Amino acid sequence: MNDNFLKACRGEKVDYTPVWLMRQAGRYMKEYQEVRSKVDFLTLCKTPELAAKVTLQPIDVLGVDAAILFSDILIPVEAMGMHLEFSEKKGPILSEPVRNKSGVDKLVIPDTEDSMPFVLETIRILRQELENRVPLIGFSGAPFTLATYIIEGGSSKNFVNTKKMMYQNPGLFNALMEKITSTVIEYLSSQIKAGAQAVQIFDSWAGILSPFDYEKVIFPYVKNAIKSLKKFDVPVIYFVNNCSGLLETVKKSGADVIGIDWRVDMEKAVKRLGKKVSVQGNLDPCVLFGPKEHIEERVQDILNKAFTARGHIFNLGHGVLPETPVENAVAMVEAVHKLSKE
Amino acid sequence: MNDNFLKACRGEKVDYTPVWLMRQAGRYMKEYQEVRSKVDFLTLCKTPELAAKVTLQPIDVLGVDAAILFSDILIPVEAMGMHLEFSEKKGPILSEPVRNKSGVDKLVIPDTEDSMPFVLETIRILRQELENRVPLIGFSGAPFTLATYIIEGGSSKNFVNTKKMMYQNPGLFNALMEKITSTVIEYLSSQIKAGAQAVQIFDSWAGILSPFDYEKVIFPYVKNAIKSLKKFDVPVIYFVNNCSGLLETVKKSGADVIGIDWRVDMEKAVKRLGKKVSVQGNLDPCVLFGPKEHIEERVQDILNKAFTARGHIFNLGHGVLPETPVENAVAMVEAVHKLSKE
Repeated sequence: MNDNFLKACRGEKVDYTPVWLMRQAGRYMKEYQEVRSKVDFLTLCKTPELAAKVTLQPIDVLGVDAAILFSDILIPVEAMGMHLEFSEKKGPILSEPVRNKSGVDKLVIPDTEDSMPFVLETIRILRQELENRVPLIGFSGAPFTLATYIIEGGSSKNFVNTKKMMYQNPGLFNALMEKITSTVIEYLSSQIKAGAQAVQIFDSWAGILSPFDYEKVIFPYVKNAIKSLKKFDVPVIYFVNNCSGLLETVKKSGADVIGIDWRVDMEKAVKRLGKKVSVQGNLDPCVLFGPKEHIEERVQDILNKAFTARGHIFNLGHGVLPETPVENAVAMVEAVHKLSKE
Repeated sequence: MNDNFLKACRGEKVDYTPVWLMRQAGRYMKEYQEVRSKVDFLTLCKTPELAAKVTLQPIDVLGVDAAILFSDILIPVEAMGMHLEFSEKKGPILSEPVRNKSGVDKLVIPDTEDSMPFVLETIRILRQELENRVPLIGFSGAPFTLATYIIEGGSSKNFVNTKKMMYQNPGLFNALMEKITSTVIEYLSSQIKAGAQAVQIFDSWAGILSPFDYEKVIFPYVKNAIKSLKKFDVPVIYFVNNCSGLLETVKKSGADVIGIDWRVDMEKAVKRLGKKVSVQGNLDPCVLFGPKEHIEERVQDILNKAFTARGHIFNLGHGVLPETPVENAVAMVEAVHKLSKE
């Protein structure tokens, strides 16, 4: 097996810098669009054969060093008891957002095998089909990121409802965070038991918080989740979007790898994170719209800047954008492999 | 005159920490809504008596230490030759976004007195009406921030068109940036000549860039604009939204004051910015939705953290949100005054 990804997670010696792309299975790829043209998004997530199929596509097309389970971060939120829909225009919609005690009380902590068996089945299929190729990453949204969707009822601009609950009713907010944290722990533990060889926790919205709120209110929950996963011998990656103001806290999360977005300089991030964690990132996804020479230049810059890290997994600083030219994503992967061998 | 604001900009001794709020004139205030109910937004911006009236409202209601010209950052973009509209739902819309050479060629560098006389007239009225109260701040969008609107045609999620032009056609992008920079310099110079006692440059979207792109592609333009304003003896404030990854570059801008958003710790920001600039900020606007005791606690925290700065002007880390309770904004201003005297 190509285990460069797992080695880099642990800070072991690698043959070259491993690379994968957040949202590497997706709309920018014609193979994905073909599958997606026949089923809606949620059906795709919930049909193990299809979810496994699109998970594998970027392994073949891009030549990346890891596969990541195809799913949606709101799958466990639906399993907690909320009604989930996807609108082409607005993205995810959770009707009846949770903003009071009865809403929080109604949420359950789902058993993954009972209420999301398709996720575990997808993992089992993938482990079989991937054998001797690349490792499989499982994932979940971080507690706070899931909380924003639960409270806002979908995406948000200013997250006013989330912060209102935080400031006006910290008791209620904490009760919600506890339920979500238990869900995340159960969900990721089940993924690992089913065969995930690493897990990534996506804190896509942590970066809307002041460092004050992040450290005092949010961080204990995600740290607790990561701690609970330590008993499994698989690397935990903690990706914090818009992390620049938060790294001194993020460093203490206990994760093996810190995933960083593109709005922070990799060299500064490595210095701030220290030698006890590996780093993942952090090319601006929009660079993939530029010419190949420019992509190479930017890949080289990040490789240089991450050179002193304990380990480095190359990635974008956020998910692949839908209009990205596939050949440029391929060029990026090739550049990472070629330049990091030199 | 209460000149604590101007003194803090220059790093001189103050009686207490001066405070104003970005978007302090706006929808959250019933006095504003009353004026706005009679005219549309652009008419309000372009009618000096009304623009002056709403500029003065927060001075009376909140007791802030500075007034800021009421206008919209896209006013000079309209004067450059674009068609500007405001949609209640989508915000500003610039029809025919500029994405090629003929689009850039068509843009003019407007003379403020000729094409935006209402702005200068508003300033003249305000200086008369404000006499012996507080200083008046003029403002402009920063070159890059204006470029994003010109290229995207309005607000954007991922700024793909802007970055595409940056990466695919740097020559064209630079030509556009030069025209905008000349416009900003002319616009702010005219505001100062008309009586603005300080100016703020809003780089609302600089924080979507990697530090790499910000420093190499964007920064020279805004630095040049600030340099051109140095001949006037008025403080220049440079506000960079989502600045955490950019402060080492921002520090070199030549601005007298650096305005920072809430996603960076004030103490760290002060250390990174050094002793040659004053700082402005940086309370999360959403804190104003919380209880007054919590507002006081957060004000105290920021005052403590900014204590070693050359000078500190208290502000929010971004504009006041529309649903903000006015009494909480008043409580914030009172807390800043009271706690900073202690």
